[in-house]
Amino acid sequence: MWGRGTALILIDLQNDFCHVSGTASKRGKNLTDVQSAFKNMVRLVNVARKENISIIHAISEHSIWSQSPSGKERFGRQEQKDTLSYCQPGTWGANIYRPFEPKPNEKIVIKHRYSAFLHTNLELILRASQVNHIILLGLYTNVCIDSTAREGYMRDFNVTVPYDCVASDNKQKHEYALYLLQGTFADIVHSSTFIK
Amino acid sequence: MWGRGTALILIDLQNDFCHVSGTASKRGKNLTDVQSAFKNMVRLVNVARKENISIIHAISEHSIWSQSPSGKERFGRQEQKDTLSYCQPGTWGANIYRPFEPKPNEKIVIKHRYSAFLHTNLELILRASQVNHIILLGLYTNVCIDSTAREGYMRDFNVTVPYDCVASDNKQKHEYALYLLQGTFADIVHSSTFIK
Amino acid sequence: MWGRGTALILIDLQNDFCHVSGTASKRGKNLTDVQSAFKNMVRLVNVARKENISIIHAISEHSIWSQSPSGKERFGRQEQKDTLSYCQPGTWGANIYRPFEPKPNEKIVIKHRYSAFLHTNLELILRASQVNHIILLGLYTNVCIDSTAREGYMRDFNVTVPYDCVASDNKQKHEYALYLLQGTFADIVHSSTFIK
Amino acid sequence: MWGRGTALILIDLQNDFCHVSGTASKRGKNLTDVQSAFKNMVRLVNVARKENISIIHAISEHSIWSQSPSGKERFGRQEQKDTLSYCQPGTWGANIYRPFEPKPNEKIVIKHRYSAFLHTNLELILRASQVNHIILLGLYTNVCIDSTAREGYMRDFNVTVPYDCVASDNKQKHEYALYLLQGTFADIVHSSTFIK
Repeated sequence: MWGRGTALILIDLQNDFCHVSGTASKRGKNLTDVQSAFKNMVRLVNVARKENISIIHAISEHSIWSQSPSGKERFGRQEQKDTLSYCQPGTWGANIYRPFEPKPNEKIVIKHRYSAFLHTNLELILRASQVNHIILLGLYTNVCIDSTAREGYMRDFNVTVPYDCVASDNKQKHEYALYLLQGTFADIVHSSTFIK
Repeated sequence: MWGRGTALILIDLQNDFCHVSGTASKRGKNLTDVQSAFKNMVRLVNVARKENISIIHAISEHSIWSQSPSGKERFGRQEQKDTLSYCQPGTWGANIYRPFEPKPNEKIVIKHRYSAFLHTNLELILRASQVNHIILLGLYTNVCIDSTAREGYMRDFNVTVPYDCVASDNKQKHEYALYLLQGTFADIVHSSTFIK
Repeated sequence: MWGRGTALILIDLQNDFCHVSGTASKRGKNLTDVQSAFKNMVRLVNVARKENISIIHAISEHSIWSQSPSGKERFGRQEQKDTLSYCQPGTWGANIYRPFEPKPNEKIVIKHRYSAFLHTNLELILRASQVNHIILLGLYTNVCIDSTAREGYMRDFNVTVPYDCVASDNKQKHEYALYLLQGTFADIVHSSTFIK
Repeated sequence: MWGRGTALILIDLQNDFCHVSGTASKRGKNLTDVQSAFKNMVRLVNVARKENISIIHAISEHSIWSQSPSGKERFGRQEQKDTLSYCQPGTWGANIYRPFEPKPNEKIVIKHRYSAFLHTNLELILRASQVNHIILLGLYTNVCIDSTAREGYMRDFNVTVPYDCVASDNKQKHEYALYLLQGTFADIVHSSTFIK
C-alpha cells in the first residue's frame, strides 16, 4: 500500500493547535475531535517509520515578516485580537507537539500560508526524493489539509487523506471538506488501509 | 464597492461546461443551476464593464501537452472515458460561451489545472495592474472557484465570491464549498452588493 | 544524443527580434549574428522534427496587462521610447518568424518576462511530457537564453545550449553569457553533436 | 538613496564559502577577492542597520532532501567528490560567517538552489514588507548574485548590486556577470552611493 515514491506529511501538529495550553484552546476552539485523532495519527506515523517512508513535518510560522496583507485586512475587519498569535517563531506554541516530535532523518518544512506548497520548498523536496504520492495527516481538515491536498493534486502528486488522521475544530466543516476532496482531489481512506 | 485595484475574473465559462451541446451536458452533468446563474453573471459583467473594472477570462485548455500524471492515474482508476474530453485547444467546446464573449480590452488567461493561479500568468497580470481584490464568478463553485479563491487569498489578494454568480452541477457541493470559503478564504456576498 | 525525455525549446524567434522590419532592427540593433545563426537553428529544428523530439516555441508578448513595474521604472529612467514596443499581442511583430513556423503538433508557450519558466506553463508542460532535458536555441544569448537556462537548471532540468544556435545583438555579451553558463548551469556544445 | 520599500539581502555569507577552513577554501577555491570585499559588505550592513532597512540573510542548505537531479547528473559527470559538501544543515560550515551574524530583528531565508527566490519564501516576505527594491550583496557574483538579481527583476523588484560588495572566486567571471547584469537586470553601483 505504500511503495517507493510515497511521503507522509504531518501538517500543523504544533502546540498552538494541539495542546490545551496553546492559542487555539485559549481562544475557545474545540479540541475534542483534534485530540481524539492523535492516537490514529501516532499509529500511522509509527508504521511509516518502520517502513522507512519519507516523513515531512509541515509547520506554520507567523510573524511580522510573513504577515499577509489580505489576512491583515480580513482579520482587521473581523476585529480578531492579534495580541494572541499562532506559532510565532521561537515560541513554545510554535514547537511541534510532543507526540509528533521529529526524528533526525525527518524533514521540517516551514509554511506561512495554509497550503504547505505555497512559497515553500515542499515541491522541491518531494521531487528530489522522487515522491509522487503524498499522504496528509494533521490539522485542520477544512483549512490546511484541504488547501494542501488540492494544491498537491494540481501539482501532479497523487494525494491520500486518511480521514481518521485529520481533524478540525468543527465536525461539520471536517466532513464537508472530506466530501469535497473525495474523488476530485484526493482519495479519502481509513488509516487501516496502510496498516497490515 | 469596487474601487481601483479590483478585477473581475470569469472562470471556465466555455461551451464544454455551459452549453447543452458541450461535454458536461453530454456526459450527463446537471446544468440546471449553472444555467440559472448565467443571467446574474451577465448582469454583473455588464456593471463591471460600465465601471471600467479589469475583466479577466480564465479558461481551461486540456491536451496531451498538459495532461497531469496524477489526473491520468485518477481518471484511469475511475475508468472514465477519455474519448470525450473537455476544452481541447482549437475546438468549439473550448470557446468562451457566447453570452460571455470577451471585449477587446479584456484579458484571457489559459489554465491547465483547476486553480487559475497555478502555472499561469494570472498573478503577474494582477500585480502589473495593481489589483489587490478579485471577484470570482463562473464554474464550478466546489472545484475551480474554490481552488482559485483559496490560492488567491493565500497569494495575498482579497477575494469576494458573489454566491449567485457561481454554480456547480451539484447543489450540495456548491453550498458546502461556499460554507467552507466564507470567513476563511473569501467574502461570500450577493452580487447586488456590487450593483447600485 | 537525444533520447526520450528531451525537448527542444525555441526562444523569441519572432518578427520583432528576427526580421529586418521588426522592432529590434528599427531601433538599430545589430542583426548580423542573429541572422547568421538562423540556418544552424533551422537545421537543428529539422533534425528534431525527424526524430520526433518535443518542440516548444516560447514567445514574448508585451502589453499593458503584463507591464512590469520594475521594467517600467528602468525603461523610464533610460528614457527609452515606448512608442515602438516589442511583440504586442496580435501584431505582425509578435508573430513567429517564418522559417520557424510551428507545426500543428508543436506547443506555443507565451511568456511576459525573459525567462520562459517564470509565470508560464512551461514547467507543467515539460513534466506532463516527462521531459528532464531541454535544449535551448534562439535569442538573445545573454538575456532570455541565459535566464531560461539558469531557471531550467535550478528547476532540475538538464540544460544544453548549442552555441551556434543562439545569438545576440552584441557578440561580446553572447560570449560572456556562454562562458558563465558553461559548467555551472548548462552544457555548451556545437549543434553537430545532435546531428548524425 | 534608500527610502522605504528597500531591503538589503545578504547571500551565502556562510563559513563554507567565506572562512579559510570552509569547504570552498579546502577545495582550493581562491578566497582573495571574497575576503577583500568583506569590509565593504560590513560597512554597508552597518549603515543599513542604522537606517532601519529590512535585512534578510539568504543562506544555502544542501542535503539529501534537496539534492537536485540535474545537479547530481552534472556533478557526477564532472567526477566532483561529494565527500566534502557545502552547507549541510546543522554543521559549522552552514553557519553564517561571524562578521555577518544576524541581529534578532533580521530574517533568515533558506534556499536550496542558486537563486534566493526559487522555492523559497523570499517573495512572500518582500511583499508582506511592501518592499519593491532589493540591494544584493555577498557571493558569488556570477552564480547566486546573478541568478537572484535576474529573478528578482523578473518578479518585478528593482534590483541594485553594489559591485564592491559582491565577489567571486574568479575575477573574470565576477566582471562578466556585472557587465551582463548592468542595464538589463540591475543597477550596478559603488556602495558609497548608499553611504552619506
